[in-house]
Parts: sequence; structure tokens; C-alpha cells
Amino acid sequence: MTNGERVSIVLIEDDDGHATLVERNLRRSGISNGFVRFSDGQQALDYFFGPPGAVAPDIPARDDLANFVVLLDLRMPRVDGFEVLRRLKADPVTASVPVIVLTTTDDPREIERCYELGCNVYVTKPVEYDAFIEAVRRLGFFLQVVKLPPGHRYTGS
Amino acid sequence: MTNGERVSIVLIEDDDGHATLVERNLRRSGISNGFVRFSDGQQALDYFFGPPGAVAPDIPARDDLANFVVLLDLRMPRVDGFEVLRRLKADPVTASVPVIVLTTTDDPREIERCYELGCNVYVTKPVEYDAFIEAVRRLGFFLQVVKLPPGHRYTGS
Repeated sequence: MTNGERVSIVLIEDDDGHATLVERNLRRSGISNGFVRFSDGQQALDYFFGPPGAVAPDIPARDDLANFVVLLDLRMPRVDGFEVLRRLKADPVTASVPVIVLTTTDDPREIERCYELGCNVYVTKPVEYDAFIEAVRRLGFFLQVVKLPPGHRYTGS
Repeated sequence: MTNGERVSIVLIEDDDGHATLVERNLRRSGISNGFVRFSDGQQALDYFFGPPGAVAPDIPARDDLANFVVLLDLRMPRVDGFEVLRRLKADPVTASVPVIVLTTTDDPREIERCYELGCNVYVTKPVEYDAFIEAVRRLGFFLQVVKLPPGHRYTGS
């Protein structure tokens, strides 16, 4: 995160296996951006807003935020994805960062809540392995034709 | 529109050729929903909100709106896509209908404006024919793994 690489995909996911599958299959779909991963919501909030009480938090510059896309799991220890989504969309600095919820939950109330909180798109991770891979690849292929707010870039091509 | 078919994709596009290509290639990607198309923004606004001055407008029921996804061009006669987007997102009844901007424009200011107005995703139509087809298919494949707010359904399967 501090090696100067231009981060673009921020994966917030507590399951190591899922995180590996997501990154690998986004890359196989042609996504060549930098990845950064956080394994719970608190880590992600610390990254975006600085740790609680920090005097001079080492947070991403506004220009760098314009290169981010967040892939967000919901069920996570410490701080869950709903709270991360709420905080990101409530702060004018981070509100424009697109958030794609990527989770196993398909409870209609939780889907509705995520859209109300401002998620751009909600994708359910299929339980079945091949379907999971396929869903991530479809996401990856699609990200390459999406235009983000100015400064946002999905592909390295 | 009045034959009882359950409409799901609302395509607002003034170019007949583009409209045909979009519908055909969404179907080829596996989208089996109903389509309805409007060729300018005023037609679309009349559909969602009733014609100006209508006493008892024949507008979609709230439950039906939950089945809609809007694919929205920007450059259109009479009322443009920005105004359609603004109206859809400003009205609590239609605000939850996902809007995917699908347009030839890739001016960063217009992309930014669409996100500010609340579009969920912004996709540029490539000028080159094969790339256009590919972008629409990627959109179609992706729509099939997206979860919408409750009641929304992309696929007929």
C-alpha cells in the first residue's frame, strides 16, 4: 500500500479463500489494477479515515480515492460491511467511490438495505465453486467497460 | 406495454440501430426479460410519471417498478437523459430503480454529472461495432449475477 503502486481494487473480505478467488479471477478476466485487501471492516475504515484518535492519519489522498473501486463483503468481524458502506457513502470525500457489494447473503432485506445505503451494485457470491468463479469473471469483464467518475480507472490497459 | 408482459428492461435510446443492437445482444447474453423502449426522454417521463396534466395517468404500479432496470442514453431529442435520470432519482417512488447510463459520451464532466445525479453505473458505447457488441454482452452477462432491491429480477430463468 505504500510502495507507490496505484491501487484500484479495494477488496474488503474476511475469508482468505474468497479473497484469493476474487483477485485471481478478476485478473484472469483482464483486470490489471493494483489490489489492496482488508480482512475486516475496521481495517478498511482505518485505511479510508485513519485510526480512531489519529492526529495525522495516513489516509489516501483525494486524488487517489478517484482510482478506487470497493468490493465489499457484508459479514465480517469487528465492523461489518453495512457500516463500512454507510461511512463511505456518508462522507463527501469517499461518497463517489463506487461500492460493489459482493457477499454470500441474499436476504432481500439486506439487499434493500445496501441499496438504501448507496451501494452501486449488489452481487451475490454463489455457493457453488464454478458459479462463484463465473460470477467474479463476469464482474471483471463488466468492470472493464464501466466508466467511473473522472480519475477512476479500472483497467491498466 | 399493456399486454401484461412483465417488463424488466426499459431502454431509453433515440437511435434505432443502437436500440436493436442492445436488445439483440442482451438477449444473446441470456437476458430473457421483457423489453420496453422509448426513443426520447419525454416518452420515458410520460411512461413513469404520466403525461403533463394527466388526471389519471396510466403509470406503472409501484410493484411493477420493482422489476425495472433502466438503460439510459444521454443525447436524445426533447428531453435528454440527464433530465430523465434526475427525475427518476429525485422521486422516492422511482429512486430505487437502477439506472445504467449507456451512451456514446465519455466526457468526464458528463460522467461525473451522471454519478452525482445517482446513476448506478455508467457504460460508454464503443464507436467500433464489434466493441459495441462486446460491451453490451458484458453488461448482459453481468446483469444476470446482480441482485436488485427486492422484487427486482433481471432474468426470466
